[in-house]
Amino acid sequence: MSANDTEPLDLATLRARIDEIDLRIQELISERARYAGQVGRAKGKLAAAVDYYRPEREAQVLRRVVDRNQGPLSDEVLVRLYREIMSACLAQQEPLKIGYLGPEGTHSQQAVYKHFGHSVHGLPLSSIEEVFQEVEAGNADFGVVPVENSSQGTIQSTLDMFLTSQVKICGEVELRVHQHLLSRSGRMEDIERVYSHPQSFAQCRAWLRQHLPKAETIPVASNAEAARRARNADDAAAIAGASAATVYGLRIVAGPIEDRPDNTTRFLVLGRELFTPSGHDRTSLLVFIRDQPGALYDVLAPFARHGLSMNRIESRPSYTGRWQYAFFIDVEGHAQDAAMQKALAELAGFAQDVKLLGSYPVAIP
Amino acid sequence: MSANDTEPLDLATLRARIDEIDLRIQELISERARYAGQVGRAKGKLAAAVDYYRPEREAQVLRRVVDRNQGPLSDEVLVRLYREIMSACLAQQEPLKIGYLGPEGTHSQQAVYKHFGHSVHGLPLSSIEEVFQEVEAGNADFGVVPVENSSQGTIQSTLDMFLTSQVKICGEVELRVHQHLLSRSGRMEDIERVYSHPQSFAQCRAWLRQHLPKAETIPVASNAEAARRARNADDAAAIAGASAATVYGLRIVAGPIEDRPDNTTRFLVLGRELFTPSGHDRTSLLVFIRDQPGALYDVLAPFARHGLSMNRIESRPSYTGRWQYAFFIDVEGHAQDAAMQKALAELAGFAQDVKLLGSYPVAIP
Repeated sequence: MSANDTEPLDLATLRARIDEIDLRIQELISERARYAGQVGRAKGKLAAAVDYYRPEREAQVLRRVVDRNQGPLSDEVLVRLYREIMSACLAQQEPLKIGYLGPEGTHSQQAVYKHFGHSVHGLPLSSIEEVFQEVEAGNADFGVVPVENSSQGTIQSTLDMFLTSQVKICGEVELRVHQHLLSRSGRMEDIERVYSHPQSFAQCRAWLRQHLPKAETIPVASNAEAARRARNADDAAAIAGASAATVYGLRIVAGPIEDRPDNTTRFLVLGRELFTPSGHDRTSLLVFIRDQPGALYDVLAPFARHGLSMNRIESRPSYTGRWQYAFFIDVEGHAQDAAMQKALAELAGFAQDVKLLGSYPVAIP
Repeated sequence: MSANDTEPLDLATLRARIDEIDLRIQELISERARYAGQVGRAKGKLAAAVDYYRPEREAQVLRRVVDRNQGPLSDEVLVRLYREIMSACLAQQEPLKIGYLGPEGTHSQQAVYKHFGHSVHGLPLSSIEEVFQEVEAGNADFGVVPVENSSQGTIQSTLDMFLTSQVKICGEVELRVHQHLLSRSGRMEDIERVYSHPQSFAQCRAWLRQHLPKAETIPVASNAEAARRARNADDAAAIAGASAATVYGLRIVAGPIEDRPDNTTRFLVLGRELFTPSGHDRTSLLVFIRDQPGALYDVLAPFARHGLSMNRIESRPSYTGRWQYAFFIDVEGHAQDAAMQKALAELAGFAQDVKLLGSYPVAIP
C-alpha cells in the first residue's frame, strides 16, 4: 500500500486508495477537533478561541511538521495545511478576531491568514495606530502590523506605537517577495519602458540603475497590471513576481532582481498577554536610557556577556524627556530563559526603564 | 483513545494525543500527495495541474466528506479543509491559474479560493469580458465570474458573453451573505441613521422601508466601516454581517434582515473543456429560437416530458438575427444522462441551435 510501488497503478486503483486515505484523514481531523474542544472546555463550557490560543504550542506543532516532512509536498504547503487544520479546530466556539491594516487584499491580510489560517474573523482597520488601539481595547483579540521591509527598512510608525501602548508582541510573520523582469521577447536590449508598482521599483532601484539606466520607469497600480501592459509591446517590460510570467505569457529576462536577496516584509502579531517559551523564540525589548557616553555599549554588553545574539537594534527619541533615548532591541531567546533573565537583571541596573514587549516564536516560513 | 471518554483528560495528555494524531494526518496527507502525483504522471512526467484537474471527481470527494461528517467541525469547515488538501496535492507541478474579476479582496476572489483552495495562482482581471478572453486564450486555466445575486438578479453582462464566447461552464460556486441591523444600544426606537454599503442597502430595501421608514440611510465604503461608525452614537445603526457585532461590540437589533432569506451570490467556473458526470449535476444550455407563438412552451416541453426539472430560464435578444431569441436554461442533470440526451434531441428538432454551455457539479456549500 505504499505509493512508491514500482508498478504504476491504474486510475481507478489510485482513486480508490485516495478515497481510503481521505476517509482516514477525516476521522483523524474530527478526532483532533474533539480533543481541541476538550482543551478549550473549561468548567464544562467551550471557551472562546482567544482564551485557549497558544502561539508557542502552534509553533511547536508546525516545527515538527517541517522536521518530519519528506515530501512530496513542500514545507510551506504542509505548514499552510496545518495552520488551517489548527485554525478550524480552534474556531469551534468563537473564532479569533484579528485586526490588520486594511483594506482587504493587502499584504497585511495575507500575513493574517498565513499566521492564523482562514478560520478567523479578519478585521480591516484604517491605520496601524488603530490596530494597536483595537487590540488594547479588546475589540480585536490580536493584531497584525508590518514592522520591517528588508528593502526599505523599519516602519517607524509601528515601533513608535510601543512607546505609549501596552500591547504585547506574541508572534511574527514573514512574507517573502521576489521580483523579476519580464517581457514578451525576453531580450534585454529591446526594453525601453518598464512598468511596475512604485514599491517594486523601490525594491529593485540599484538593479535598474545598473542594468537599464536609460529605460523609462512607469508606475502602475499593481504588478499584475504591469505584466498586462508589458504583454502588448516588444519595447516594454514589467517588474513582477515570476508567476506573472506564466500567467501573462511573458519571458523572464532576469531575476530575482530585488536589491536585497531576502526581500521580505516582517509583521508583528500583537496581543494583550505574554506567552511561555516555544523552544525557538525571540524577545523584543524597549530600553529607555539617558544619553551619556557609552550608553549604547552598556545596552549591548549584558546580552553579549550571556551569549545572547542580537538581531536588531534601533534607537528612537523617546518623547518622554530631553536627552533620553529609547532603544528597540530584538534578541534571540525567551524572557523566561535563565541567560535572558540574568541579562535583563543587569540591564535593569543602569537603564531608566526596560519594557518587555514580548517573547514569541521565531517566524516559521 | 476516543475523545468522548467521560473522564476529562489533563492538558498534557490531550496535547500528546493531538501530537499523535498530527503525525498520522501528516503521513496520510503525504501519501495522498504521492498518489495524486501518480494520477498526474502521464508518461513518467508530472503534468501541469490543468491537465488532470477533474471537477466532477472533486465534487464526489467533497460530497462524501459531508455525508460522513458527524462533527464536531461543521460541513463547511471540513469542506474547506478538503479543498485545501486537494488543492495542495494538485499543485505539485504547476498550479492552476484562475482568472477572476479583480481587484483582490472582492467576493469573486473569495469564490476562487472557496472553490479551488489556496494552492492556485489567482489572476485579478479588470472586467468580466476579460475573464472570458483569458480563459479562451489559454492564459488562465479557469475563470470565475458572478452570474446571479439572489437580491438583484442575473448579471446580464455575464450571460451575454456566452453568446459569442466558446468557453464552457465547468462548475458553480455560491457565497451566502446574511445582513443584520446592529447598534450600540440594541434598541430599534433609538435609530435615526443607518450606515452600510450601497449593495447591502439594496439587499434590505423592503425591510428598511417597513421597519425604519424615517431613518436616514448613509452609504459608506464597506460594512465594516458602517459598524465602526455605528459604535460611536446611540442614534446610529449599521447593516453588516453578524460577525461585525462581535468585532465592534454592537448588539444585533434585528436579523437576518435581507429581503431574500437565501441572499447568495452565484458564480460560474469557466474552462475550455466539458467534463463527465459527478452524480449530481446541472446543465446550462443556450437555445436559439425564432420568435413564434408557443416558442417558450416548445423549449420547456422536452425537459418536462423527461422529468428534468428546470432551475432557471432567461430570455435574451440574441443579436444574431431579427426576431430571434436566445434562452439561457439551467436544468438538473448531466448532458450524458439518458433522459437529458433524449430531451436535447427533441429540442434540436425545432430549435435553430442548441449550445451546450456545460454540465457541472451542483455547488457544494
